[in-house]
Amino acid sequence: MASDAVPQEGPGGPDGGPEPMTPSLAEALAARAAELEACLDTLLPVTDGLEARLLEAMRYATLGGGKRLRGFLVTEVASLFHVAPTCAARVGAAVEMMHAYSLVHDDLPAMDDDDLRRGKPSTHRAFDEATAILAGDALQARAFEVLADPDTHSDPLARAELVHALAGAVGARGMAGGQMIDMVGEGRKLTLPEIARLHALKTGRLIQFSAEAGAILGRAPLPLRHQIAFYGRDLGAAFQIADDVLDAEGSTGELGKTAGKDAEAGKATFVSVLGLERARAQAEMLARQAVAHLDPFGPEADPLRDAALWVVMRKN
Amino acid sequence: MASDAVPQEGPGGPDGGPEPMTPSLAEALAARAAELEACLDTLLPVTDGLEARLLEAMRYATLGGGKRLRGFLVTEVASLFHVAPTCAARVGAAVEMMHAYSLVHDDLPAMDDDDLRRGKPSTHRAFDEATAILAGDALQARAFEVLADPDTHSDPLARAELVHALAGAVGARGMAGGQMIDMVGEGRKLTLPEIARLHALKTGRLIQFSAEAGAILGRAPLPLRHQIAFYGRDLGAAFQIADDVLDAEGSTGELGKTAGKDAEAGKATFVSVLGLERARAQAEMLARQAVAHLDPFGPEADPLRDAALWVVMRKN
Repeated sequence: MASDAVPQEGPGGPDGGPEPMTPSLAEALAARAAELEACLDTLLPVTDGLEARLLEAMRYATLGGGKRLRGFLVTEVASLFHVAPTCAARVGAAVEMMHAYSLVHDDLPAMDDDDLRRGKPSTHRAFDEATAILAGDALQARAFEVLADPDTHSDPLARAELVHALAGAVGARGMAGGQMIDMVGEGRKLTLPEIARLHALKTGRLIQFSAEAGAILGRAPLPLRHQIAFYGRDLGAAFQIADDVLDAEGSTGELGKTAGKDAEAGKATFVSVLGLERARAQAEMLARQAVAHLDPFGPEADPLRDAALWVVMRKN
Repeated sequence: MASDAVPQEGPGGPDGGPEPMTPSLAEALAARAAELEACLDTLLPVTDGLEARLLEAMRYATLGGGKRLRGFLVTEVASLFHVAPTCAARVGAAVEMMHAYSLVHDDLPAMDDDDLRRGKPSTHRAFDEATAILAGDALQARAFEVLADPDTHSDPLARAELVHALAGAVGARGMAGGQMIDMVGEGRKLTLPEIARLHALKTGRLIQFSAEAGAILGRAPLPLRHQIAFYGRDLGAAFQIADDVLDAEGSTGELGKTAGKDAEAGKATFVSVLGLERARAQAEMLARQAVAHLDPFGPEADPLRDAALWVVMRKN
């Protein structure tokens, strides 16, 4: 099992033993997730207008689920630069809305056609397709609205930079482009560099943005902002390879989403190209590389170091 | 025909006669449309990556069609405030991308299920549903990316304000919310105030933003910015009522999209509630009201005055 492969030299759990998540990381993740949940609840208020169903679907898709890894990265990195927690939580919430929108659209019948998400019916199953499409669209808009709001940062340059960076990360040269390549990949076998690029766009860029957003919020000096961006990039890559490993070996119950979908769809994955062991080793190498980018920071970055190692050890 | 009802007191055509578009408006629209087309072509470059199909679909949905009313409003209002034309064209292009995305998603089988748009197969017919969903998603992201780009305005406050206002206009309390109400309206007859609110959200807010964006770009004093916003609001309302009139009386060939869809779907429209004549009179009243909001401006605002009157006179 994956726990055998915990890198002994890493700053992970007390002894690198079978528990992949350190108690301090578990605590930090839970605390950040609670902050984010409260913030999302405020940012997506219910309405009694005729469009109420849309808000319900947006809340259904966003609240009460997920590991909140992206929001955690925003708020943890922001704390390195002493950003006010309420501002950081807003940006974390915006990133989680963007992530939620991508899941809603990816699950649609015309896309991955998935009935299950985070252990619940996916949004188009719980509501209907039209509502799911609109909820995704409106979540994307809301994420940008929150970033551009003066409550998020008093400096308009920080707000504009956040919007610009996030838009790049989710557009045709980011998340949406990656999903397009994923669709193309159902028709023909992708090569390893193509798979790597697919994931760098589809999930990597949003994870990298999540880390970088904390540095933008903190007006971090450029060299530190770059270190954080490299951390986010390598963490994102590790995350996706680990996801392929989980999809190959996991069960639907543990994952909270349908397992084995990629193999079934005939898609080339890191595991199908590299094999399980080499894919796992590659993920671990990337996680250690992510941790190394945090060398300029002291123990205050330990939750970020632990998160990088946990990402490749997790069971769901 | 509608031409009988040209308001004689308006600053429209030379004699308010049967030609609804003045030569100067026709010229201005054509010139702005050409500027916007060139700008869109630059902002949506082709790519040779595996995601090429996505860019092709984004370009298919956005380039080479439409009246470009929204982009025209941005650039015309911006010119009142002496904004650099290249900056104004970028914002006009962003608004046109946003409009194009909304059409792509509205035409999807789960939404209005329309095979025809601007006289061509709609995007999901020319490509496929998954590509159309992603193209819409990526166009939305690209619109925000362009607004937040330093090339659009040197002042980050203007960029952040543009993003914030546009996000509000297209989100759950704007365009997406209006589309949700439109879907709800297929199940039950909406009242007149409900129809008015539907359209204020679905099309009104983006048209209002288009006008207001020119004032934001020009750092207009607040009272003038408000006048422009009122102009945009009333023009948007007039536009939608005129659209209902066209849908009720037009032919598919003239419209370039499927005519009579609303009646067929059993939707309540301004025409079904008010009747053709009262709906037309209401649109004309709103257009004159829009023109009145431009009183603080001199003859340099004539193309905007003409546009308001043309909007209720047009045949497609």
